[in-house]
Amino acid sequence: MNVHQPISPWQEGYSLPQEFYISQAIFDEDVRQLGQTQWLLVDHESRIPQQGNYFLFELGSESVIVIRNRSGEVKAFYNVCRHRGSRICLENEGSKRVLTCPYHAWSYDLDGNLRSANLMPADFDPKEVKLAAVHIGIFEGFIFLNFADGTPPDFDAFVAPFRDLLRGHGLKKTKVAVRKTYPTAANWKLVVENFFECYHCNSAHPTYCSVHDKLKMLAFGAGAGSGDDKDMKLYEEKLANWERFSSGLGYPVGMFAHEANSAFFQSGNRLPIADNAKTESVDGNPLAPLMNEFSEFDGGQTGCVFNPLSTLLVNNDHAIFFHFIPKGPRSTDVEAVWLVAEDAVEGADYDPANLMKVWDVTLTEDKTITENNQLGVNSRQYRSGRYSTQERRIAEFVQWYLDKIAP
Amino acid sequence: MNVHQPISPWQEGYSLPQEFYISQAIFDEDVRQLGQTQWLLVDHESRIPQQGNYFLFELGSESVIVIRNRSGEVKAFYNVCRHRGSRICLENEGSKRVLTCPYHAWSYDLDGNLRSANLMPADFDPKEVKLAAVHIGIFEGFIFLNFADGTPPDFDAFVAPFRDLLRGHGLKKTKVAVRKTYPTAANWKLVVENFFECYHCNSAHPTYCSVHDKLKMLAFGAGAGSGDDKDMKLYEEKLANWERFSSGLGYPVGMFAHEANSAFFQSGNRLPIADNAKTESVDGNPLAPLMNEFSEFDGGQTGCVFNPLSTLLVNNDHAIFFHFIPKGPRSTDVEAVWLVAEDAVEGADYDPANLMKVWDVTLTEDKTITENNQLGVNSRQYRSGRYSTQERRIAEFVQWYLDKIAP
Amino acid sequence: MNVHQPISPWQEGYSLPQEFYISQAIFDEDVRQLGQTQWLLVDHESRIPQQGNYFLFELGSESVIVIRNRSGEVKAFYNVCRHRGSRICLENEGSKRVLTCPYHAWSYDLDGNLRSANLMPADFDPKEVKLAAVHIGIFEGFIFLNFADGTPPDFDAFVAPFRDLLRGHGLKKTKVAVRKTYPTAANWKLVVENFFECYHCNSAHPTYCSVHDKLKMLAFGAGAGSGDDKDMKLYEEKLANWERFSSGLGYPVGMFAHEANSAFFQSGNRLPIADNAKTESVDGNPLAPLMNEFSEFDGGQTGCVFNPLSTLLVNNDHAIFFHFIPKGPRSTDVEAVWLVAEDAVEGADYDPANLMKVWDVTLTEDKTITENNQLGVNSRQYRSGRYSTQERRIAEFVQWYLDKIAP
Repeated sequence: MNVHQPISPWQEGYSLPQEFYISQAIFDEDVRQLGQTQWLLVDHESRIPQQGNYFLFELGSESVIVIRNRSGEVKAFYNVCRHRGSRICLENEGSKRVLTCPYHAWSYDLDGNLRSANLMPADFDPKEVKLAAVHIGIFEGFIFLNFADGTPPDFDAFVAPFRDLLRGHGLKKTKVAVRKTYPTAANWKLVVENFFECYHCNSAHPTYCSVHDKLKMLAFGAGAGSGDDKDMKLYEEKLANWERFSSGLGYPVGMFAHEANSAFFQSGNRLPIADNAKTESVDGNPLAPLMNEFSEFDGGQTGCVFNPLSTLLVNNDHAIFFHFIPKGPRSTDVEAVWLVAEDAVEGADYDPANLMKVWDVTLTEDKTITENNQLGVNSRQYRSGRYSTQERRIAEFVQWYLDKIAP
Repeated sequence: MNVHQPISPWQEGYSLPQEFYISQAIFDEDVRQLGQTQWLLVDHESRIPQQGNYFLFELGSESVIVIRNRSGEVKAFYNVCRHRGSRICLENEGSKRVLTCPYHAWSYDLDGNLRSANLMPADFDPKEVKLAAVHIGIFEGFIFLNFADGTPPDFDAFVAPFRDLLRGHGLKKTKVAVRKTYPTAANWKLVVENFFECYHCNSAHPTYCSVHDKLKMLAFGAGAGSGDDKDMKLYEEKLANWERFSSGLGYPVGMFAHEANSAFFQSGNRLPIADNAKTESVDGNPLAPLMNEFSEFDGGQTGCVFNPLSTLLVNNDHAIFFHFIPKGPRSTDVEAVWLVAEDAVEGADYDPANLMKVWDVTLTEDKTITENNQLGVNSRQYRSGRYSTQERRIAEFVQWYLDKIAP
Repeated sequence: MNVHQPISPWQEGYSLPQEFYISQAIFDEDVRQLGQTQWLLVDHESRIPQQGNYFLFELGSESVIVIRNRSGEVKAFYNVCRHRGSRICLENEGSKRVLTCPYHAWSYDLDGNLRSANLMPADFDPKEVKLAAVHIGIFEGFIFLNFADGTPPDFDAFVAPFRDLLRGHGLKKTKVAVRKTYPTAANWKLVVENFFECYHCNSAHPTYCSVHDKLKMLAFGAGAGSGDDKDMKLYEEKLANWERFSSGLGYPVGMFAHEANSAFFQSGNRLPIADNAKTESVDGNPLAPLMNEFSEFDGGQTGCVFNPLSTLLVNNDHAIFFHFIPKGPRSTDVEAVWLVAEDAVEGADYDPANLMKVWDVTLTEDKTITENNQLGVNSRQYRSGRYSTQERRIAEFVQWYLDKIAP
């Protein structure tokens, strides 16, 4: 019963054929392509404020050292010594004055240049030895990595669509309040498909539904371009009213969604959470102090999909970023990180358990849903299924994936 | 030392070459062929007496919903939603009025027809959407499944050889008393080979040997066709005497064993357990009330091998069915289910621990034996070995397997 | 990120390309070649002093019974019954009068000949049935196995280089005091490379460095041919003085190291541990009584590399042998066994915890180092690295491996 059906013809508006959700070879190629063509959101700068502070980011067989150098810049290097290949940093995060390999004590400066290596042959030139670099980009305090062997995609072009939408959000002046990983036994594309439609919200997410405006969830439940045409029309006037109010406060408004032929497949929007809700909390009340550049609550939430693996949601008082880390054909780590204003005090100004509540419940529900989706997709009777009018955005994702990423 | 020997020539009367016990590719094809060509015994109807009652049967990557519909018929469907492929039923057993997918709430009636799906495109026709069915057959209360893509093998022809032998056993009016799974780290063919010879009984099964007639075990220890010619001859007269006695009570007697060119490879027989034994218990005394249609104990045991994965043993007071579920090239689940008369009362009329004792001990011993067999077969020094005259039935099984199932 | 780089050109003086440290196919071939071309040190005879005493040695899918027969000889057989292939001995060690298979009771004498099998067909000739033998060689009480299908390599030639060096060490009259396995998540070649250079001692092994002479570690830290030329020169005079002293006691001295074109890749040497050190203990004091044929402590350590998987170190009062057992492309068992004089009394004459201390600390450190080496080597950014002048012996090992073992 394990025999895979042959690669089957795919039809627009349908989910992918089975092999794209289970094959090791397709998975390996997916990860390679995503690493080469996308900028992956990995963390917020506030994690490494001082020179020498570092953390490790792991993707597949790769471990990357993300470290702040002596000039205060953030650099990224493969965690692989140029001598015999040992891992150099063994702890998940910490602080280093030099990067010394624990095996034979070859040591590198914080820009990756070899500083010393004992007893090398006479013709060995240490100046030729550098740690392999990973491309790095920083936007609004967020660190993005790209694994291209040659020239990476243009970072400015990558972040340009979000500049306006994130104006005045004060994200550079935030700090990590709490982070949590949800290991999910499913292909990364099933995780993405789950995340970019709200067709399942009604049956699967009672808490999330109690927080968000009902009509908005039908129209834009998973952001720009995710809902039903008719419902979008019905929601138009309400949205226009809120946008006038928010603009009046000097806040940005707007919405865009890239087509499937985009290199990055991005979308952005600002939407009100619900009538009378100040933020995305169980009761609509604030969870933390206003982030630095907001003057008052407008109850809006800014959604930024940088690429299908990297999403950011910003409320007036806290932000959350999500990154999906493919681990295997049937395994993905979903990491969520909650940010608050950098001067907010844990315990006094915010309670991490409250802060994470709505999304912790929702992501836990999504883990179960997505794992059961994978189990069914493993069946030889799985067939590509028709997407509903509330799953338009993932129909577009699937098309983008087939055009830009798939082998 | 892990390098497999090339496919070696096989000789009649010898066990299979190594690759048939270890290869993933051969395993995948075995499971496919068994599912397509055989009717697999999965459970007894009494497990789902009311409409909406269901249980899941799992084989390889497949999960099957076996459910009683509104008309009281038993139906079987792949547990895969036609929308995005999610598992529909998540619990191992239960009761459902409709089959609603937990992901997006698509719901199906108990005949597998789509009843409702929200927000689908205008050209979507719900009447075209049905759950994928698995072929089902019912005989004497036992549920059999077949996974053929097209027309399944004829079910009446499949059960015909057993009709007479099971006459008056009252199996429809039984219920499950206890079930237990013995996960076994061995190829399914090693499990089958262990089950269909009694050459190992003497060295490995002291309890089983203390229960059964010594000479019968040599002649028919693993049913019709399993023993040594000489011993069969010696046992002839004793068997004839018992058959006269049993026939006098109006009970069926007889024996048959299909040749290796049979589509199903079946056998059946009625044999006395031992002198003075009423049933297959440690002391020969009854373990439960007579099953409904027996009028008194004749100490007989009816053995039915429906196919090498599906066996039924019926005593006067209880029955046991065994199904072997291939899980991987070196992994098989052995499930045993004990049945008693449907009106027998647990605690008063039977004690599950006593009921299962003889076979629980025996199957536990077999698990160890078979796992050590697999470990040795993994060696590059394993060679096909000669079968004894008490292993004739498995010599025939191996030939049948090579003719009908093997790639 | 999991996609392997293509087989890359290798340069003398550099570590191997990635595929040699991660590929399953190369691993399988490595194990086959090592088993066929090398004599593997598996244990010391004293483990099985009486007839019928046996232990199991496991390599890959193979289990080998090493047993003392009725004439007192040590024999080795694959642990695979010739009937259906079951494992015959299930316990890791013990004592047997005959080798009886637990499945169907076929029994073999201690020379591997079938003694009895019930109910076999008339044309079955038990005299044709023998357990498959593994080649065996014994030298100074050590048991070596070879898995060649045909004629094994000449055992006398294999041990000849060590005869002189081990003269008067009394190794036949020793016994096992303690043994320990260090399961290591790394390719066997990374384990070997770690073991045959002392370039890492300074950064990684404080205890080991506190025990051994500093200059000797630079010159010969991993035995003959392992150090820097300049340091060897500096150490020359000190070594010559010690050799005069040791020879004066009648003890052997000397050193040799095979070239990379040798069939076995061996080396041997006698070196003083450190000034004033009697043996390889934390404080230099004895850990056990002198082994039988030494008359007094000369503080020497005899090192014998029989092949890259089999090493022996002998001090005046105890010996240690190391065998590396490849388990998978990224998994190796490192087993160390400590020996003392056969009449030494545990508790009175030696304390196992003290005896093993220096190497237990060192091997535990090496396990961590080697596992982090493997993690880095898994990266697509791993590149073959230049060896230092203190890693010359492993540069030679790599060349030998590519010439003699690699596919």
